[in-house]
Amino acid sequence: MTIRTAFLTALVGVAQLTRHALGQSTTSSPPVPVPTGIPIVGDYNGTYRPQVHFSPPQHFMNDPNGMFRDADGVWHLYYQYNPTGVVAGNQHWGHATSRDLYHWSNQPIALFPPEEGVYIYSGSAVVDVNNTSGFFPDQDNGVVAIYTLASPTLQTQGIAYSRDGGYTFTPYANNPVIGSTTAQFRDPKVIRYKDFWVMVVAYPHDFAIGIFTSPNLKDWTATSNFSHHGLLGLQYECPNLVSMPYMNAEGKRQDNMWLMAISINPGAPLGGSITEYHPGTFNGTHFEAVDAAARIADFGKDNYAGQWFYGLPEEEFPVSIGWASNWQYAQTVPTDSEGWRSVMSLPRQNYLTKAKRVGWKLVSAPYNLEPVLGRELASNHSMGNGTLIVDYSDVESNAIYWEVNVTGIPEKNIVTTASLNFTFSSNATSEYINGGYFFGGDPVFFVNRNGARGFDNIFFTERTSISSLTTEQNSWSLSGVIDRSILEVFINGGVDSATNTFFTTQPLSCFTLSTTDLPQGMIVSIKVNTLESAWK
Amino acid sequence: MTIRTAFLTALVGVAQLTRHALGQSTTSSPPVPVPTGIPIVGDYNGTYRPQVHFSPPQHFMNDPNGMFRDADGVWHLYYQYNPTGVVAGNQHWGHATSRDLYHWSNQPIALFPPEEGVYIYSGSAVVDVNNTSGFFPDQDNGVVAIYTLASPTLQTQGIAYSRDGGYTFTPYANNPVIGSTTAQFRDPKVIRYKDFWVMVVAYPHDFAIGIFTSPNLKDWTATSNFSHHGLLGLQYECPNLVSMPYMNAEGKRQDNMWLMAISINPGAPLGGSITEYHPGTFNGTHFEAVDAAARIADFGKDNYAGQWFYGLPEEEFPVSIGWASNWQYAQTVPTDSEGWRSVMSLPRQNYLTKAKRVGWKLVSAPYNLEPVLGRELASNHSMGNGTLIVDYSDVESNAIYWEVNVTGIPEKNIVTTASLNFTFSSNATSEYINGGYFFGGDPVFFVNRNGARGFDNIFFTERTSISSLTTEQNSWSLSGVIDRSILEVFINGGVDSATNTFFTTQPLSCFTLSTTDLPQGMIVSIKVNTLESAWK
Repeated sequence: MTIRTAFLTALVGVAQLTRHALGQSTTSSPPVPVPTGIPIVGDYNGTYRPQVHFSPPQHFMNDPNGMFRDADGVWHLYYQYNPTGVVAGNQHWGHATSRDLYHWSNQPIALFPPEEGVYIYSGSAVVDVNNTSGFFPDQDNGVVAIYTLASPTLQTQGIAYSRDGGYTFTPYANNPVIGSTTAQFRDPKVIRYKDFWVMVVAYPHDFAIGIFTSPNLKDWTATSNFSHHGLLGLQYECPNLVSMPYMNAEGKRQDNMWLMAISINPGAPLGGSITEYHPGTFNGTHFEAVDAAARIADFGKDNYAGQWFYGLPEEEFPVSIGWASNWQYAQTVPTDSEGWRSVMSLPRQNYLTKAKRVGWKLVSAPYNLEPVLGRELASNHSMGNGTLIVDYSDVESNAIYWEVNVTGIPEKNIVTTASLNFTFSSNATSEYINGGYFFGGDPVFFVNRNGARGFDNIFFTERTSISSLTTEQNSWSLSGVIDRSILEVFINGGVDSATNTFFTTQPLSCFTLSTTDLPQGMIVSIKVNTLESAWK
Repeated sequence: MTIRTAFLTALVGVAQLTRHALGQSTTSSPPVPVPTGIPIVGDYNGTYRPQVHFSPPQHFMNDPNGMFRDADGVWHLYYQYNPTGVVAGNQHWGHATSRDLYHWSNQPIALFPPEEGVYIYSGSAVVDVNNTSGFFPDQDNGVVAIYTLASPTLQTQGIAYSRDGGYTFTPYANNPVIGSTTAQFRDPKVIRYKDFWVMVVAYPHDFAIGIFTSPNLKDWTATSNFSHHGLLGLQYECPNLVSMPYMNAEGKRQDNMWLMAISINPGAPLGGSITEYHPGTFNGTHFEAVDAAARIADFGKDNYAGQWFYGLPEEEFPVSIGWASNWQYAQTVPTDSEGWRSVMSLPRQNYLTKAKRVGWKLVSAPYNLEPVLGRELASNHSMGNGTLIVDYSDVESNAIYWEVNVTGIPEKNIVTTASLNFTFSSNATSEYINGGYFFGGDPVFFVNRNGARGFDNIFFTERTSISSLTTEQNSWSLSGVIDRSILEVFINGGVDSATNTFFTTQPLSCFTLSTTDLPQGMIVSIKVNTLESAWK
């Protein structure tokens, strides 16, 4: 296995490929053996390697695919995977499993290109408990994957079934299950609705999401299109239709809403890739948004193609994972020096709420971090104006979690210099990333990766910001995870969130939180914990 | 006058005020004499001072207001103005006039706060040719200004009339003409529709634009609201409803459409201020957008609160001017060292078209530059791969115009390194601003002001980009104006455009255009001209 791995690494391509060229990209490459039946092995010790996030053992990963939780409580994560290079191309479905969404076991590749020049693009998976498909006459844990079969000139939707719970798949003999005449038809996401299946699938260049229904996952009927809603960019991709809890302003759960999430790339306002969402209603055939507003899921630059896990009961909050990168630079980030590229976002729990003034918001907060939460590094529950410095250079994972709660914020007359700032710096270099919140004037929160020197790219936007109001209770909170080359922050419990990768030449190892010019009566409470590596 | 000017300059406030605090901001300041009946004088020679753009003679300017063209062909530009400071506050309407939209004459302040603690916020102006208002019994050139009367706790809509063609105004005795109980109701823009007046006005925190009608500019009827459409940010401001020409893909003019433009601030995706627009239909009482898409007017960071001139016949293309700044840093940019802050965008001609793939686009191109266009500095009509360097250090205005046309672009298989890049650099420092277009992969254009060192602010986003497709004719074009501290670029004749201010410690004086890895058959044509100062 070691030999094979080394051989594959040596064959890593360096061509700069774009998503459009994925299909073509490998047609001129020499055939490369892709391991079957055994997991690819990875070294998770690199300077850039996140320790509590999923990243591929080697090579290039993009969209999360086929996510479901099985009856035994095992979370299955598949992903767009080039097992022979650190740029996109030669698309397979990689596979990993977890019992807690943090400790992942790499599994053998799950889906392989069925023929030369046809690749497996993004899609989803369901558990066909009632054997509606007929693939599973004697079991209730059959898994069906639904995905795009992509050649340079044609994209159709195919399915494959797994009788071993999602580890190995057999392509359906009569693929495709939805044909087409275009190369712009992809990313099917299937859910169960009452007694039938519902698929959302993108017509990228038409800025439309097709909604199909099926009794058996094989025969599909087009029922409606949802189109030209929100930011368009140059393409719609990776739709999700999700039954989504709605928690009202008092934190009381109401009837579920429906959520349509659409990824756009390229053409996001910040450049490249972004995800937007629309709350609404769904009647089994048609989705109707509550309004014509455009709502962005993440104000960072690295959260795309997110998908929600299939198989959670409606009582639970839906759980999603996004691809923490951006097509503007995903194929050029410096992690190729460690043999891999791209990381997934933290798993997130989601629900809808109505936030002060801005109304509908998709809340996105980390899924229970307990399995990786380590010792407390520092805490201060009555800080006021001051500075907290935490040297975490002895934390082996280099990963920490922090949360700050600010209460007693006056409604008015806060000076514009009143602020809370955090910095992650290095003991070895002058590198840093930072962020902060200004309480006065038009309250605004920013994240800045301009101080990281390990990567320079004209599209690697350094500074992102969001207008962030205090809550109805005159409080404001921030939590975050920093994990070697990725920073995720969550404001007011996830009402706003940002995912940003960053690349420093040396690991960051010092956390400084300071508050300035806060008026009397404001209380700052802060807690900092280590995160334990999930990859040891 | 010189003495008075010096006196005013000495009283410039330095408080960091936000838009929300405009009304309050001056209540604690000492009373300052504001000149009446005479124009404020300015020095237009500073390092930062644009030479072909409008900027205020002194002090702080924000939104363009009251724009109209009179029967003699004189363009009137009013603007939100603090005549006693270089930050926002103490809002008056400044005034300037022009016969060509480039050479402006500063006029005396046109509108003054009517009482202590009540200021004149943004609004519009119309020529009441038929004396519908009754203010003009014996003339057909009466001007009515419609604006927001703003105190810290209340915003209402008032009017004032001018019997001298827009130079001096008398407030209507029965103001307000539209009352309210809220401090969130502002920015009325009035147009003539058939035989009555139509006003659009923002309910900022409701994310709604109210549509009112009136026979006489005094009595207004609320007819509908247009709400929750596109990006919301934290506020809607400065709406415009414009009858807008539609040119089809073949360049043939079709029936006019209607356009609803809305500025949002704060909360733009890039941070702070932005303008979005919606093509649609209007029946005199209701505006209906063609779809629920969110379309952004400018992919730079400095184009806000744009307004269209009243008084142009429908045969002409509408003309607009925007405020070329962003509330995230408008009050801290370094031009206060020259006694002024904020510049208007170039005047723009606008129309709607349907661009390749993305559909509806508001085209925005400079209004006829002829009055300021100077000598040709360089040209090359068959460049292919190469570099053109133009030293313009002897150009007194420091302002140049350039245009590049690229033809013969292959449909496919362009290497991702195929690019066109421009840089404006300094002979004295290492400062620069630059931009470029990548033809291959997902074609993208960027502008980068990271190399300008005269201003540092965490919200001064350096890099913006846009996905920009080639035209149906396999061509692509770029034109631009650089004018000391402002860069405006126009792609494909204005299908996309970006407005960015920048602040270098020394004037830039060298223009370099280079093309790399273009395939055979692509032809690059370039022309560079001086721009002559309009302020000499």
